Amino acid sequence: MNQHLQELQAWVAKQGLDVAYVSNFTNINYYTGFFSDPEERITGLFVFPDHDPLLFVPALSLEAVKKAGWPYAAAGYLDHEDPFARIGDEIRQITPQPRLWGIEKDDLAVYKFEAITRQFPQASFPADVSRFVEGQKLIKTPEEIAQMVTAGQQADRAFAAGFKALRAGITEQAVVAEIEYAMMKEGVMNMSFDTIVQAGVDAADPHGGPEGTQIQPGELVLFDLGTDNHGYMSDATRTVAFGGEVSAKAKEIYDVCLEAQLTAQAAVRPGLQASALDKIARDIITKAGYGEYFNHRLGHGIGMSTHEFPSIMAGNDMELQPGMCFSIEPGIYIPGVAGVRIEDCVHVTATGCEPFTHTSKAYTTI
Amino acid sequence: MNQHLQELQAWVAKQGLDVAYVSNFTNINYYTGFFSDPEERITGLFVFPDHDPLLFVPALSLEAVKKAGWPYAAAGYLDHEDPFARIGDEIRQITPQPRLWGIEKDDLAVYKFEAITRQFPQASFPADVSRFVEGQKLIKTPEEIAQMVTAGQQADRAFAAGFKALRAGITEQAVVAEIEYAMMKEGVMNMSFDTIVQAGVDAADPHGGPEGTQIQPGELVLFDLGTDNHGYMSDATRTVAFGGEVSAKAKEIYDVCLEAQLTAQAAVRPGLQASALDKIARDIITKAGYGEYFNHRLGHGIGMSTHEFPSIMAGNDMELQPGMCFSIEPGIYIPGVAGVRIEDCVHVTATGCEPFTHTSKAYTTI
Repeated sequence: MNQHLQELQAWVAKQGLDVAYVSNFTNINYYTGFFSDPEERITGLFVFPDHDPLLFVPALSLEAVKKAGWPYAAAGYLDHEDPFARIGDEIRQITPQPRLWGIEKDDLAVYKFEAITRQFPQASFPADVSRFVEGQKLIKTPEEIAQMVTAGQQADRAFAAGFKALRAGITEQAVVAEIEYAMMKEGVMNMSFDTIVQAGVDAADPHGGPEGTQIQPGELVLFDLGTDNHGYMSDATRTVAFGGEVSAKAKEIYDVCLEAQLTAQAAVRPGLQASALDKIARDIITKAGYGEYFNHRLGHGIGMSTHEFPSIMAGNDMELQPGMCFSIEPGIYIPGVAGVRIEDCVHVTATGCEPFTHTSKAYTTI
Repeated sequence: MNQHLQELQAWVAKQGLDVAYVSNFTNINYYTGFFSDPEERITGLFVFPDHDPLLFVPALSLEAVKKAGWPYAAAGYLDHEDPFARIGDEIRQITPQPRLWGIEKDDLAVYKFEAITRQFPQASFPADVSRFVEGQKLIKTPEEIAQMVTAGQQADRAFAAGFKALRAGITEQAVVAEIEYAMMKEGVMNMSFDTIVQAGVDAADPHGGPEGTQIQPGELVLFDLGTDNHGYMSDATRTVAFGGEVSAKAKEIYDVCLEAQLTAQAAVRPGLQASALDKIARDIITKAGYGEYFNHRLGHGIGMSTHEFPSIMAGNDMELQPGMCFSIEPGIYIPGVAGVRIEDCVHVTATGCEPFTHTSKAYTTI
């Protein structure tokens, strides 16, 4: 049994639960090595205190479960069968009357919850598996960090492809096409999120995407991208000058943002509070007069999803620990003028942190 | 108010509900024209029997809500605020003690359900909005069909790009790269699902994806792809022979599959049961001796998602009606030998059906 699954089983036993139901497909991958988005179909991992776990999947996925190396029992259901009736039957063979359940409250839809309750009318749900998984995922193993290092190297190559694609008049969307094409050609079939390329004033909207806007010389161009390396994500942002000098204001916010990013990244160490790290970057931007234009948190956790814990923001007093992975991504967005964001994801080490991406952050003209 | 939202409000009134909470972001788009995947943040559309609806979003999305043309009230919350406390406040301003709620049981996670219950301890949940939306989405408006026609034209161009990319030794993944690159270059930034290209025996796994397998002359190559056209999806499959003659068995299953597909498509008319349509295709394949190798339903509904209702399968006695949109996709998968699938999505008309994709289905060698 892998370490994550072992820890979950120990928690199930310690909580006095009869069974825990993991419903989120990313978390099922985390515990089993089997990845499948079942869409409207049903997948579930059932973990018992003193019995081997059971993986329940659409029958069509049983072959893939085997291929993924899952060593315990797996049960499949056919499209015309009621999956929850089948789940009920399977579980009753292991534990006849499971009373105390753990469920993933962040994931489990009400109709699935109701279906479980119909199968097990005496069930109660004292434990939230979401909170346990979340805590577990906070600290990455060396094997997980190795996967993320590879994902970071892919992201560095994606930046190189994007920079190479820049030319006067090319659209933001066409640059995205070149980046994702380059990644797919090397066998990276999924980006970790929709690639963002924004030029000039477009970059002042931190929630926008690539448009048909043609990129012009003398503009800052923002690239925010990442790859999915066998379920482990990268995420990084670079902002570069294209085709010559940008406005003095654009250059100024670049310099401020870079100082904030570098200072925060250098300040990471075990024991520092997440909120304090946010404040280190925010203070620099505020002092320079741009505080109101940095309108999001400094960072988010990353791992098998691009947004997880820890959240690097005001109000989060969680202390950083070795093995935590998160983004450090200050941004300054001045509507109608320009936008800058600079981001590395890092993992915390015994004495500081190591970034997953290494593309230069120094002000660069392409 | 658009027609879909009007119908939802009428249903809320008819059911005697005080409020309905639409939580699924695709359904929020369906009712409001505002599209955003909020990930871990919270978005909700609240519909009242006798008051204008309220759209609740992360504060950072308020600008996008305005841009999307939403004419009613919108409220935003900041990252450090409790979104459900804010939802409670907003709703109490409209209706002080909402007792009877409709919720989307297919979508709403247990923790959100519990948060609503904490805000409104006297709430009960007699109505499932999921079932209502599902029924509403069964029949597409002419405007929706027009969007899907455009998506189908995009898919036809994607096939052309894929066929053009075929050459001896190219990998399945590299062909996918060429297809998606061609789509992005014309401004189609999202495929409706991960593009599938499978050659030779790889195509015998209807649940596999593109691999590093090199495509060889004399093989059938299966393309299953679709695009996302402003929220409306296309989905189609073609199987072509590459580089010369394929085996007699492969050619035979192609011919059987094609006959099943064409016969089923020609049989569509209002009043025909979904199960009967599945049987028409299945009988042809079974009679030819390949019934056991057609191991999935004939088709699925399509619209703002690639899998919705109606499901074209045994056991579903729903009668087809004009405006329904679904796939007709028989397949024959012989492990170790070859796989064929041929698919058009269609919309039902007064007298038959019209496909969204028009790439030739005749046996083609490239």
